[in-house]
Amino acid sequence: MSSILVVGSLAYDDVRTPVASRDGVLGGAASYFSMAASLYAPVRLVGVVGDDFKDGDIARLRDRGVDLGGLERRQGTSFRWKGTYDFALDTAETINTDLGVFGDWRPKIPSAFVDSEFVFLANIDPVIQLATLEQMRRPKVVALDTMNYWIDHSRDALLEVMAKVDVVSINEGEARQLCNTFKLAHAAREILALGPRVLVVKRGENGATLFTKEGAFWAPAYPLDETVDPTGAGDTFAGGFVGYIAECGGFEDPVSLRRAVLHGTVCASFAVERFSVDGIGAADRAAVDARYKALHDLIRV
Amino acid sequence: MSSILVVGSLAYDDVRTPVASRDGVLGGAASYFSMAASLYAPVRLVGVVGDDFKDGDIARLRDRGVDLGGLERRQGTSFRWKGTYDFALDTAETINTDLGVFGDWRPKIPSAFVDSEFVFLANIDPVIQLATLEQMRRPKVVALDTMNYWIDHSRDALLEVMAKVDVVSINEGEARQLCNTFKLAHAAREILALGPRVLVVKRGENGATLFTKEGAFWAPAYPLDETVDPTGAGDTFAGGFVGYIAECGGFEDPVSLRRAVLHGTVCASFAVERFSVDGIGAADRAAVDARYKALHDLIRV
Repeated sequence: MSSILVVGSLAYDDVRTPVASRDGVLGGAASYFSMAASLYAPVRLVGVVGDDFKDGDIARLRDRGVDLGGLERRQGTSFRWKGTYDFALDTAETINTDLGVFGDWRPKIPSAFVDSEFVFLANIDPVIQLATLEQMRRPKVVALDTMNYWIDHSRDALLEVMAKVDVVSINEGEARQLCNTFKLAHAAREILALGPRVLVVKRGENGATLFTKEGAFWAPAYPLDETVDPTGAGDTFAGGFVGYIAECGGFEDPVSLRRAVLHGTVCASFAVERFSVDGIGAADRAAVDARYKALHDLIRV
Repeated sequence: MSSILVVGSLAYDDVRTPVASRDGVLGGAASYFSMAASLYAPVRLVGVVGDDFKDGDIARLRDRGVDLGGLERRQGTSFRWKGTYDFALDTAETINTDLGVFGDWRPKIPSAFVDSEFVFLANIDPVIQLATLEQMRRPKVVALDTMNYWIDHSRDALLEVMAKVDVVSINEGEARQLCNTFKLAHAAREILALGPRVLVVKRGENGATLFTKEGAFWAPAYPLDETVDPTGAGDTFAGGFVGYIAECGGFEDPVSLRRAVLHGTVCASFAVERFSVDGIGAADRAAVDARYKALHDLIRV
């Protein structure tokens, strides 16, 4: 079966919400992505952790079948992020970021991984995303995520790497920021004109919108009675999205892209129901498929 | 063809938005509703205006084929509402309300209208909604809209009239307020338990959700590059929704309810593109059907 390579952060998060908090819980884009994508296809992880990283957290990924042959362990502390959410639960306010061993890390793709057909370049300096992509042999589908910081500070490199990937995954606010417009449809056209075949705009509790040159697909979020912790929702979405595409062997059939958005949506819904990767980690494929069916019922005419 | 009766306000609105303003423009729930519903079926209007009401505004409704046999003209001023929106454009802040002749008006359904099969009771004191409904012979589908004021001040009457209608149309915040919960699904179950077969929860630029005992349907708003004036979006939505149901002769087929939500969504999209009823007034059925198709393409999997 097609393998998925993820390159990105593993972290310890300190998360504050108005009703509860957690300290030192497993986080990072690659963790969330892997826990979701591994429900669909074998996942290979390239990342770095410090000597404080707990064996139990390694075990959580390994138990999900994630191939950790690309996980470096270095002297120093793991990436640590501290953030807080207000009642709107829409955007995290970062209280502190300590990059630790992630700070000067340059991903090295193990030779056993360079043939991976599906690649997710999680949020990191786009210069590093480019250097990572160049190590791959001939991936079938490459997706990338980014954040507002790189739009501000590394715009040229970001545009360069966007031109080389198939799927760009980005928040609504970031899409607007990147294109300097409030008009999302304009921003989508501009981003697609850069080169990617697919743009996924994440809209938090308002769902996600898929843009291709052929048209758009608008999906709501999976309705939950309660969101506990939005951390990792976007990366978990990416895990379900790329995972489903890998399971399909690609997205030549346009319907598979729309279904992939729904799978991403469903995976994200599990993620935000609990702190850390506990929600998506507790979900199995049957649970995902049941929510997929419920979500599909909710939107079909 | 089945006739639609609307009972509600005609008003002059003074509207402020961050980028433009209009004074003394045609507004009121019955105006917005009629301009939309008349695209689907003959509309009969029951309302009241003052002697300041302009012939040109009467003509706009008549030109749309609206039967004004139930429009009273009284000495005094027409209902006047002044409201302002901030950049979020989500909720109007009312600056001033002058009920004028609408204040002590009690709708009297003309005998020629009492056989109307489809009825929309626009937002007004629920005691009056009840008294109006009792004048109808045997309507096939009755829908009602309400607002937060009546939830606070006339709750018992509101619950009583809700039990007697088929469709309740309400804002998301009002649904939560009515049921004293943040959990929309819980609120929906409670409202449906009161008696109506259908609940439509309007969610502004996030779309609308349909609830029935059989399940839910989640529709996004029609994506617009720019919203000019959200006034009347809910009533225009109701016009498209009830209009389509009247055109279908009812909603025995559950698919017709979902399609009705999309028609309501499309009509609302025209309404908010311009001030007053100018947007929905400029739309014809072909324009509505074209947007319906585009919206359907946007959500089908």
